[in-house]
Amino acid sequence: MKAEILSVGDELLQGHTLNSDASELSKLITELGISVCCHTVVGDDPAALRAAVEAARGRAELIVTTGGLGPTYDDLTKETLSAAFGLPLERNADEESYIRDCFARGTSFQFTENNLRQADLPRGCTVLHNEYGTAPGCLFECEGTTVVMLPGPPRERIPLFRQKAMPLLRGRSGKCIRSRELHMMGIGESAMAERLSDLMEGSNPVIAPYTRTGECMVRLTATAESEEACEQLLTPAVREIQARLGEYIYGYNDATLESAVLELLRQRGMTIATAESCTGGLVAKRLTDIPGASDCFAGGVNVYTEAAKCSLLGLKQSFINEHGVVSAAVADKMARRVRKLLRSDLGVGITGWAGPGGEDVGLVYVALAWKGAEGKTLSCVRRLTLGDRGRDRVRIVAANNAFDMARRCLSGMEI
Amino acid sequence: MKAEILSVGDELLQGHTLNSDASELSKLITELGISVCCHTVVGDDPAALRAAVEAARGRAELIVTTGGLGPTYDDLTKETLSAAFGLPLERNADEESYIRDCFARGTSFQFTENNLRQADLPRGCTVLHNEYGTAPGCLFECEGTTVVMLPGPPRERIPLFRQKAMPLLRGRSGKCIRSRELHMMGIGESAMAERLSDLMEGSNPVIAPYTRTGECMVRLTATAESEEACEQLLTPAVREIQARLGEYIYGYNDATLESAVLELLRQRGMTIATAESCTGGLVAKRLTDIPGASDCFAGGVNVYTEAAKCSLLGLKQSFINEHGVVSAAVADKMARRVRKLLRSDLGVGITGWAGPGGEDVGLVYVALAWKGAEGKTLSCVRRLTLGDRGRDRVRIVAANNAFDMARRCLSGMEI
Repeated sequence: MKAEILSVGDELLQGHTLNSDASELSKLITELGISVCCHTVVGDDPAALRAAVEAARGRAELIVTTGGLGPTYDDLTKETLSAAFGLPLERNADEESYIRDCFARGTSFQFTENNLRQADLPRGCTVLHNEYGTAPGCLFECEGTTVVMLPGPPRERIPLFRQKAMPLLRGRSGKCIRSRELHMMGIGESAMAERLSDLMEGSNPVIAPYTRTGECMVRLTATAESEEACEQLLTPAVREIQARLGEYIYGYNDATLESAVLELLRQRGMTIATAESCTGGLVAKRLTDIPGASDCFAGGVNVYTEAAKCSLLGLKQSFINEHGVVSAAVADKMARRVRKLLRSDLGVGITGWAGPGGEDVGLVYVALAWKGAEGKTLSCVRRLTLGDRGRDRVRIVAANNAFDMARRCLSGMEI
Repeated sequence: MKAEILSVGDELLQGHTLNSDASELSKLITELGISVCCHTVVGDDPAALRAAVEAARGRAELIVTTGGLGPTYDDLTKETLSAAFGLPLERNADEESYIRDCFARGTSFQFTENNLRQADLPRGCTVLHNEYGTAPGCLFECEGTTVVMLPGPPRERIPLFRQKAMPLLRGRSGKCIRSRELHMMGIGESAMAERLSDLMEGSNPVIAPYTRTGECMVRLTATAESEEACEQLLTPAVREIQARLGEYIYGYNDATLESAVLELLRQRGMTIATAESCTGGLVAKRLTDIPGASDCFAGGVNVYTEAAKCSLLGLKQSFINEHGVVSAAVADKMARRVRKLLRSDLGVGITGWAGPGGEDVGLVYVALAWKGAEGKTLSCVRRLTLGDRGRDRVRIVAANNAFDMARRCLSGMEI
């Protein structure tokens, strides 16, 4: 079974809006065992949309449309699709009263009769009631083609597809596709691929390596007749990769380095504190992106200048002069001092040249301090030479290393 | 003149890769006065690509292709397009020696004869030499259609299009399109639109409002026969908007709130320090995203917990207990203390409930402290009630308000 995603909107064609929906929907459709054969984007132009619908009917059995944002645009998509499939639009009474209720419950917007047109749906369709907004989606079948129309903004469209459309489409392809992602840090993509090369020759699950700034990932995708059968294919393959590369794996699926660290800290009832120079708050920001970080994040300092390193962490200017502001000694002292200052279990210190430009751009020292077995403070410093491949990259990779060191320390591994 | 963007790659259809190129290319093509009428994405499948090319020829005079990543994928696009237009591939001697040179100069990759296929180009094309990678792009014209083929990763593709293809395409449409963006903070989208409603009725420049988390933007787009003529249309319209909404405008085009603040600080030779609770380093991170931030960012503290507020900023626990940790008094004290601690000109203090959940979720106090005329420290606190619309949103809007307060203070405006 093949699917096409048809997005409508001038703003997509002018490049001001990224078509992120198409990629999110593609993933979900692929999970259903249906292969996406084409994405098409057309403007707010009924003739272009009509032509795109006809082309899509010729190559796909499932067409998923995503409309524009306003009620006007939704109308364009609904009217054109209904006409293309010869189904008149009819007002749905339940949806009409839902829309009236939404406005009656009081929003900042004025009710106009025009809003009720959102309740007009193709005859005989299954309504996909949208509790995230006023415009419903719908699903209908006509002459061998299944059409799903999704309304409104992404935050309505994706949950609506996931919760209302996917259950109706499940099982249609006669197969099921499941993926598992294993995230790794501390090993390069090519080294990872080399150590998995025999597994990567298999075709079910498909095992493919990916790279991201400063870390890498392997995705396993299994195809079978049921979810259970997919799991039976995935489980031994995941175990084999764990056996080979376990120490590098920090998490699965949606995990991030920071969520892995926070989870380990939480399990152990421990806290972390940060002293950041070149990363300037990035480590703290990433930790506090996660709800409930306050349980484990004791706080931090952004000591971007030498003066701040002295005033906030009590480093001596003479010490900085002696070792250089970007040095293992300074990173180490930063980690130890911030740990002491905030009475945390772990302390992170990062100093480096993020660039752009400069002789030593990309040189970063990342330090971790923690309490050793006999109450003595232990520490470890990584020296990174990241070169001049962008300020953002230097900062991200430096932060990743801080998280990786914390993860390894908390897991009792060598750092 | 109409254009279609044709992207090739299984990874796009499976949703693992976002089609960000299409939006970037769309903007550039629109700048040329050429309207993009369709985006199409097909997989690594010659038959699907061939069908897409034929469809594109029927509706667009310019086809821009973006291939996959590997040499294999590039071959697929080149061979299919060449066949569709009846142009044989021929090896280009200059490109061949360039590729050999690239490998001879030593990269981590092994040279194989296969790499030379990147020098095979359609007969009679204009070569778009790619100094960012080994695979060249090309431009050719055939039976009224202009085709631009772009190779490799985005960081090669976009500069290649901008530097090599755009000069060849400029003037083709007989018109020119120029945009100007005015970014605003402190006024809602609907209030902004209302105060510009008469201007928005005009058709050249087109004036359209947009909203982004906690701020808004108006884009002016002028169409004329030359760049100069576009500017003559834009300049008076921009002036009129400045006259009406000047105090809310913090920047133009690529400006961000943080870059506007940093620029004002730099002009005045002043510094800023931050004390962040619920934003947990976001303000510091955004400031230090900008190269050279160290000139004006004196440093900051991430005082996520009450203990950290006491140990790093010297707040008294009794003071926190008296006022509540999320209060105007605590925010104010944080701003004043961090300013003093880091001897900066401005101090920011932020405390609030970012959620998710909790009775007062979305309640945030943002304080700014600065030196008044007679050497006395002045301060101002904003109380934000942002509700439970996502942790990220609360943090972003809180940070935006800190930047806006700093901007207004530095510009001598009422905060």
